[in-house]
Amino acid sequence: MAGQEIDALLLSVGADLPYFTGYRAMGLERLTMLVLPGKGTATLVVPAFEAPRVEARPEAFAVHPWEEAEDPVQVVADLCGPSRRLAVGDQTWSTFLLGLQERLPRTAFVTASPLTRELRMRKGPEEVELLRRAGAAVDRVVDRLDRHAFAGKSERRLAAEVAAMTVEEGHEAATFSIVASGPNGASPHHEAGDRVIGEGDAVVLDFGGRLAGYCSDTTRTFFVGEPPDRFLDAFAAVRAAQQAGVEAAAPGVPAEEVDRAARRVIAEAGYGDCFVHRTGHGIGLEEHEHPYVVEGNPERLEPGMAFSVEPGVYLPGEFGVRIEDVVVVAAAGAERLNLSSRDLHLVG
Amino acid sequence: MAGQEIDALLLSVGADLPYFTGYRAMGLERLTMLVLPGKGTATLVVPAFEAPRVEARPEAFAVHPWEEAEDPVQVVADLCGPSRRLAVGDQTWSTFLLGLQERLPRTAFVTASPLTRELRMRKGPEEVELLRRAGAAVDRVVDRLDRHAFAGKSERRLAAEVAAMTVEEGHEAATFSIVASGPNGASPHHEAGDRVIGEGDAVVLDFGGRLAGYCSDTTRTFFVGEPPDRFLDAFAAVRAAQQAGVEAAAPGVPAEEVDRAARRVIAEAGYGDCFVHRTGHGIGLEEHEHPYVVEGNPERLEPGMAFSVEPGVYLPGEFGVRIEDVVVVAAAGAERLNLSSRDLHLVG
Repeated sequence: MAGQEIDALLLSVGADLPYFTGYRAMGLERLTMLVLPGKGTATLVVPAFEAPRVEARPEAFAVHPWEEAEDPVQVVADLCGPSRRLAVGDQTWSTFLLGLQERLPRTAFVTASPLTRELRMRKGPEEVELLRRAGAAVDRVVDRLDRHAFAGKSERRLAAEVAAMTVEEGHEAATFSIVASGPNGASPHHEAGDRVIGEGDAVVLDFGGRLAGYCSDTTRTFFVGEPPDRFLDAFAAVRAAQQAGVEAAAPGVPAEEVDRAARRVIAEAGYGDCFVHRTGHGIGLEEHEHPYVVEGNPERLEPGMAFSVEPGVYLPGEFGVRIEDVVVVAAAGAERLNLSSRDLHLVG
Repeated sequence: MAGQEIDALLLSVGADLPYFTGYRAMGLERLTMLVLPGKGTATLVVPAFEAPRVEARPEAFAVHPWEEAEDPVQVVADLCGPSRRLAVGDQTWSTFLLGLQERLPRTAFVTASPLTRELRMRKGPEEVELLRRAGAAVDRVVDRLDRHAFAGKSERRLAAEVAAMTVEEGHEAATFSIVASGPNGASPHHEAGDRVIGEGDAVVLDFGGRLAGYCSDTTRTFFVGEPPDRFLDAFAAVRAAQQAGVEAAAPGVPAEEVDRAARRVIAEAGYGDCFVHRTGHGIGLEEHEHPYVVEGNPERLEPGMAFSVEPGVYLPGEFGVRIEDVVVVAAAGAERLNLSSRDLHLVG
């Protein structure tokens, strides 16, 4: 903070706040914000009636509750006082930032993540262990899905079943479950809908949850019945690309090289135009965080960095294929935190 | 917009975007933003691989997909051009706002909700009908809970069961379920945890979901076994306060008067210090929106305004009580959209 002349960090919704305090702000219109100065005591500004949610950590920060008729933006502005530069958590609602800018017109505001990412990006052994436990929990869900009925169910129903299993296997919450069947598979962020899964459908299943605050995220591709050669060809390309991406990851390697390694395999198989997203994203207290595995990110990997490797091939009107593991960089290379079968999962 | 010299609205995460377009942005690090100028065509800037999620509405807006290696903030800045004043959706991530401010240094940025609230706050008949259907769906869950086993279950498990029922009764998603048992009930926004519900516990159950985009939100208080007089006294105060709040709501009445009407009853019963939050919040495409039923909001109610009336009494270390209905203002007064019993729900 001193190096960048930042007087205080202002952290609200998102994972920076739980990273420093263990407390996750509610994403609602009542402001929760930690004022974390370079020197002196940190103060958590929180709605008074939500203060019982904050576990007492008197050694780490003071709690400043605000009442319903108070203006919490003014409370934060008063705590900041005359500042040169304040760094605001990336996901903070813009209405609060605009309110602070109005009340502190001579202060420069910058984004907090260039600072906080440096801490959050490199996971310690305890964090890696929690990511490993979360990964093992979604792997158990995949194993159960191999014996699960797909045909005749709507995507929405299967998504609800996957979410329930995600909790049963040890997550405190299921955070997302993409179920993209048949031609819907060609939309990488498809939202599970009313389409009923049937014989001859490929199903892309991308899901995860939160375990002790840390996120899981895995994708496997299922097929109901006998897959045709055209599908198997695309599947083989994605499977090889995922392997190549994981093998490319090692300390000192630029993040974009992992993307290139996976993309090269898919391009050589003739599906270059069908891999329409980056290869992966960092993961930790947030589903998506630094480092991003994308062309244009020359950042060199280091031990403790955790991210997804999830190439895909998408054929509009036909089907999609994606395979995703979370990996963590170790001295010798990347350790996979997802170990369920990466083969095609044949289901009924 | 012309009256406030606003050249364009910039809408991202939150409900303003689906209000205008039917499309809800994903709350992730890839920017989705509608540029809605006062004159001319609106443009939705969206990650290219998420474009298949956007249902084609060519008459309403153009779609501008951006590729993974592009800078979407620059795309938005270019679409805005030299502007005097831009209004940004309240929940837009601050990192995007800071990026826009850097690229458009001569433009003033303001909050969008003073404009958008004027449209969203007054529900049309179709919106009221969707809120009514969502309300009836959570009412059916309450009816089922009267025959449901509470004792011996953790709060977390009961919360998962309530969420599942919320979907079964017709919501596309359950969005929250507060289960606050025994002394946890004294924390109004308690997060369901490992506490096991037992004989002699009051349980505050506050839950809802989204049905065709519109939100439900209801609270009922349950009791396992025989409630003691001390509890029944507090319950009677909250029940009467909720009734008084609903009766106070009518066209022309200031929103804060509804808060005062409910609060007066609780104060007269001797629990004034124990009602630690506002009486309610508007509801629609978002769980919490304008108008807020809180001291300091003199805004006059109008037909079509929908909001919660949810007084509570919280005794730290002992229990909590809350009763919540959503109501919509009609010519003759407030219509309740929740009709399940507001009596104490006795369960086993």
